[in-house]
Parts: sequence; structure tokens; C-alpha cells
Amino acid sequence: MAFSERVSRLKSSLIREILAAAQRPEVMSFAGGLPAESMLPTVEWTQMPVALGQYGMSEGEPALREALAAEARALGVPCQASQVLVVSGSQQTLDLAAKLYIDKGTEILLEAPTYLAALQIFQLFGADCITVPLAADGPDMVAMRQRLEQHTPAFAYLIPTFQNPSAVRYSEASRDAVAALLDEFGVTLIEDEPYRELSFDGASAKPIVSRLTRASWIYTGTISKTLLPGLRVGYLIASPDLFPHLLRLKQSADLHTNRLGQWQASQWIGTDRYREHLLNLRGFYRSRRDAFEIALQEHFSELAEWNSPQGGLFFWLTLHQPLDTRTLLDAALAQDVAFMPGEPFFADPDANHGHLRLNFSHIDPARLNEGVKRLASVVRAAQNLKAA
Amino acid sequence: MAFSERVSRLKSSLIREILAAAQRPEVMSFAGGLPAESMLPTVEWTQMPVALGQYGMSEGEPALREALAAEARALGVPCQASQVLVVSGSQQTLDLAAKLYIDKGTEILLEAPTYLAALQIFQLFGADCITVPLAADGPDMVAMRQRLEQHTPAFAYLIPTFQNPSAVRYSEASRDAVAALLDEFGVTLIEDEPYRELSFDGASAKPIVSRLTRASWIYTGTISKTLLPGLRVGYLIASPDLFPHLLRLKQSADLHTNRLGQWQASQWIGTDRYREHLLNLRGFYRSRRDAFEIALQEHFSELAEWNSPQGGLFFWLTLHQPLDTRTLLDAALAQDVAFMPGEPFFADPDANHGHLRLNFSHIDPARLNEGVKRLASVVRAAQNLKAA
Repeated sequence: MAFSERVSRLKSSLIREILAAAQRPEVMSFAGGLPAESMLPTVEWTQMPVALGQYGMSEGEPALREALAAEARALGVPCQASQVLVVSGSQQTLDLAAKLYIDKGTEILLEAPTYLAALQIFQLFGADCITVPLAADGPDMVAMRQRLEQHTPAFAYLIPTFQNPSAVRYSEASRDAVAALLDEFGVTLIEDEPYRELSFDGASAKPIVSRLTRASWIYTGTISKTLLPGLRVGYLIASPDLFPHLLRLKQSADLHTNRLGQWQASQWIGTDRYREHLLNLRGFYRSRRDAFEIALQEHFSELAEWNSPQGGLFFWLTLHQPLDTRTLLDAALAQDVAFMPGEPFFADPDANHGHLRLNFSHIDPARLNEGVKRLASVVRAAQNLKAA
Repeated sequence: MAFSERVSRLKSSLIREILAAAQRPEVMSFAGGLPAESMLPTVEWTQMPVALGQYGMSEGEPALREALAAEARALGVPCQASQVLVVSGSQQTLDLAAKLYIDKGTEILLEAPTYLAALQIFQLFGADCITVPLAADGPDMVAMRQRLEQHTPAFAYLIPTFQNPSAVRYSEASRDAVAALLDEFGVTLIEDEPYRELSFDGASAKPIVSRLTRASWIYTGTISKTLLPGLRVGYLIASPDLFPHLLRLKQSADLHTNRLGQWQASQWIGTDRYREHLLNLRGFYRSRRDAFEIALQEHFSELAEWNSPQGGLFFWLTLHQPLDTRTLLDAALAQDVAFMPGEPFFADPDANHGHLRLNFSHIDPARLNEGVKRLASVVRAAQNLKAA
């Protein structure tokens, strides 16, 4: 069997296994990143034009591209609809970016921790991952400058707003500093913002791409966290030098994104109805965050520390006594609790023990306290065992 | 700008330009491969479950996988639903296969001519294309054996039923011989069958994958030619040794295929309504084929030869006096006629002049004769110029 060299880097997916185990109805799952079912909006299909059944353009539907460009301009991103490419979920942006930039051994710059599905696809293509530690308000800028002096990454991949997994939101100062540094070294920025709209304190910082003056950039977002993930509609907006390449790569990947989802997205983006839905969503998830934090304080305050997330879908716990949290999984699942170990979110998992990512959006509130309690007992048992 | 080495092989797409030009309403286009709008079925969305808005499984919807496996078994393909992966149009199968198999310099075996978007993505990943000429009933078996004795292709990519572009349908003998040869050399088969259901004479030959006894295989199909291409729903069925790798590659590409399209597909596949729709479709396209052939006989009989297609969407013309048909495009478009030059369907375009691919499914019948007449005059003018 002669597979590509690339396939040797295709990891057996711990995450797939966790999510599969979490499907059992009796499992209290903090593992995934699913929107709450009760907040999936009711959508109408009766007005959808029949003509959308035909093949469409690789770029995406013109009306949706216009709406997305208008939204991005309102955030400060200088762009036209011609720079917008509709993709099959923002995961596809990562696939296109990997194809555009990564050969075996290509250096790229990532946050530590970072989104594990990004790590997986960049590593699949053979990337050499250079990482910068994240502090509460953004990356360690001393480390970031040092990395850029010592390496020549093809791009920096950053998630500056309610990062998955850490929930970190870059400060204004951090955003400016990162933009200035990337401009100075001429490094392309890929800015991934799936969680921007899920802000609990109403703050909205301008994207970093809007602060660049020289570097090339790709800004990517999705409707999966605010409307319906099942539609598989995301988008990227790219600086004009990158767009034509990304468009051809999109065409060769799947011709174009499904037109039903694009049409539905265009019924929402930029409308008053969407803004109202976002307000409801923020309030709902803020309440879930608050309830989750109460349970954490009750059961985890002696075991771990965390920052209260100001948006997004996750708590990121750092254990006082680090251990490889992957070793907790079997015991947790035996207790009908699923969570995401922190290690796979690092390019070097074995050097980064002791974090847990806990999703607060999807758990049934009635089972929340019991689940957190059981998880704490699993952690405590493992630490006692280790100490013994 | 440091792009991947791969991007240097990303071709400026002649096809994109032709299809863009063909969008002008005054253009009579034989260029694309679009279904006729009048044959797009009316679909209902009112019964679609709201839960499909949530994230789904990377494998695809269970009901659709079951239905597709049952259809494939009815064709003779030995498979279970667990071997079915729903993809975002069968173009995505080519992307996943390229990732699974192709490093720079990997040899692959292709028909000459072959589907140009397959050629593009395989070449993007760096494939070294070994080709076998097609005769009217299948590949040249002497050449195919010779290639397999001299090369070790990672896979053979074949379109045995109403091939795009040549309309060739492999005979029973050819299918058996190809299967035996691939088994003998242990070469994986990727069998692409978008046009299987568009058969005008009612014949249905068993897929080649069903005739293999040893070689690994991927069988791929789509609903784009029979239902609605805008849904972007295709599928692959793989031998069990390949499936887990393809599934992981699918997950990293776009998580999963949109669930709306999957749901709609499952309302049709395997139903009496679908079988009735296919009957109507075959009758409709057969009539279009017949009308097209009358126009060809009137205007092209002195210029070219062709086999009457027994299915699919294309006529493949071979000029009596070969010339680079790409050089005809500007003159044709100046006459408001679009067509697809044959050269891009070959791994070595410059060694394969003198073919035209003409789509007969999408042209307005009222403009058909005028379009073919104008195209013939463009060919004649170019040949006279060459002769002068």
C-alpha cells in the first residue's frame, strides 16, 4: 500500500473518539463545541429560488458576498465583495491556506495553545510549528519578536477573539502590537474569528487584519456559531494578492459551497432579525457561562485556575498540580463525563500537561453540577494516586 | 511571497474564463456540463427536521449512507453503509484521493483524454501522469499492460461509463480485462461515475470495482447530474482498508457535508419517485442528443468525426485536420459561441490537438442549429487560414 508521505502524519483522532463516546445519551459532555439546540433559529425555506439547484460560482453567491463584505467593513476590515470567498465552513479556510502555503518543513507561527483541528491540518501538510505562548490579553510579544527574528514563518495563524481553547481575547494594545510586528517582518496573517459575535460584555475590538498596513492577510469567519452549523457555510476575506490563488484552490476542492446554506445565510447576515438573534444568543450563553462558573467554583476552586471567558464557548482550566489530562479520559467516561484534554491543543502535547477545555454551551443545565462534580472527583483521584 | 511549491502548478484556468464568457446571455454555450434547468426537479423542504441545523457526522447522514449502499449493492458493488462517505460533491473525492496518495512525483494512471478537473487537482499535488489511450469500447489494453509493467502508479483513475469528455462507455469485456489487470498488478482503482444514470439505451454494466478480487478501490458518484448540483452532495464508497484514512481527510477538509443537501438526497435515492425522474431525464437528454446530432451532421460531417454518445452530456469531436482548438476560442466567442477545447483534457495538451467537447444538455434547442453552424464556420475559417 503506497500512500502519500502526508498520510503518515494523519493522526488517529483522539477527538473523534471522545465525541463518539459523548454521543451516548447518559454522558454529560463538556467535550464538543456545539451550539445549544434550543438556540438554533427556526429558518424558512419556502422562498428559496428554484434556480439555486443549479451549479453556482466558486466565489459564492453575489448577495451573500456583498453582505459579508459590508459586515466586515463595519468592523473596520477594508474590503470589497470581490475579496470574499464563501467556503464550506471555516474549516475549509484552513485546508485552502494549508494548500496555499505549506510544503513539508514550512515554518508557520501559532499560538500555544491553538485550535486543534488547525494544528492537525497544518501538520498533515507537513508544517513545522513555531509557537508563541498566550497570556491573558494576547501573545507574549517578547517571544513573538524573538520567533520572528529566528524564523521565517509562511504565515501566523491567530484566533484573537475568544480563542479556542483558551478563551483569550487580545487587548487593543496586543492587537496593535501584533499588527505592527507582522508588518515589520512581512508575515501573512490568518485571523480566525468563529466566536467574535458571541461576546458577553458587548465589547468589540477591531480585527487585527484591519490594523495591518503591509502584510498580506486572510480573515475567516462562519455562521456555524451563530446560525446553523449544519449548513456548512463559512467565509474568508483575503488581501487581493492572495484571493485568486485561494479561489482556484476552492474550485479544485469542491467547485463551490452549497447554495441552500448560502441563500439561508443571506436571509440573516446584516438584517435586524440577525442582530436581535445575536442579542438573544449572547444573553443565553452568558447565563450558561455564569451557571458553569458557579459549578466550577464549587468543585474546582482547589484544583485549578481559570479566567472567566468574556465570550465564546469554553472554559480553559489549568490544574494546580499538572498531569497528563489525556490519562483522565477513561475514568471520566466511566463516570459518564466527557471533556477535552488540553494536550492536543499544543504542537508539543507532552510538554504541555495540565489543561482541560470545558464547553459550557451545550450541557443540559440540570446535569451541569453533577457533571462538574464527577469530573473534579476524577481529577482528585488521579492526583491522589500520583501523590501516593 | 513564499507560497507552497504546489501553487506553482496551479494553472490559470482557461475553463474559468470560458465559462465566465459563456455567462453572457447572447452566447450559445456548448462549454459547460450543466443540467438543463427545466429538468431540475421541484423539491420540498417543509418536512426537513430542525435538528439538521446542528453539526453532523463526518461520515454523512446514516439514512443516506444506507440508501447509497443499497443502490451500490444493486449495481453489484459489494459494500455496507459503513463504507460510504458522503462528500461535498464528487469533486471532493478527487481532493481526498489526491491527499491520500499523491506526493510530488507520485505516478498515477489516467485515461487519455480524462476529466480535466481531475487532471488539475492530481497535477496540483504533483502527480506524474501516466496515460492510456481510450478506444471506443475502453482503454487500449496492450498499452495499459505495458504501462503497468513499466510504472508503479499509486492508483488508476477511470471514468468507465459515458466518460467526460469522450462519452466512451467501456464494454463488458473491457471492464473484465481492466479489473483483472489491476488485480494482477495490485493497483488501486478510483472509479468515477457521475453519468452512470444518464443512459440513453437502458444498458447498465456493472462497475469495475465490483469485478475486482484483490485491488483496493474507491467508487464515487454524485447527485449533481440527476438531482440538483447546487446541493453539493456526492459520495464515495471505499474498500475497508482505505475508508478510515478517507474519513479523517474528509473531517480535516470541511468537518462534514451540509446536512440539508444530504436530507434532500435521502428523500430521492432509492424511491419510485427517483426512478420515475430518471426515466424522464433519460428521455429528455436522449432527445437533446438526437437534435444535437442532426445539427452536427448538417454542419460538421465534412470537418470532424464522432461517436454518438449513448449517455452522459457530451459529444467529443475529432477534427479531420487537427489544429490547436484553443486557438479557435476567441473567434468562436466573437461569434457568441462557446465550446470546450479538447487539449486541456490531456496530460500532454500540446501532443493532443484537434478535439472539441460539446455539451448537448444545456443549450436552448431554438439556438442549437445556429450555434453549431457558427462553430463550424469558425473551424473552417481556421483550417482555410492554416492551409493557405
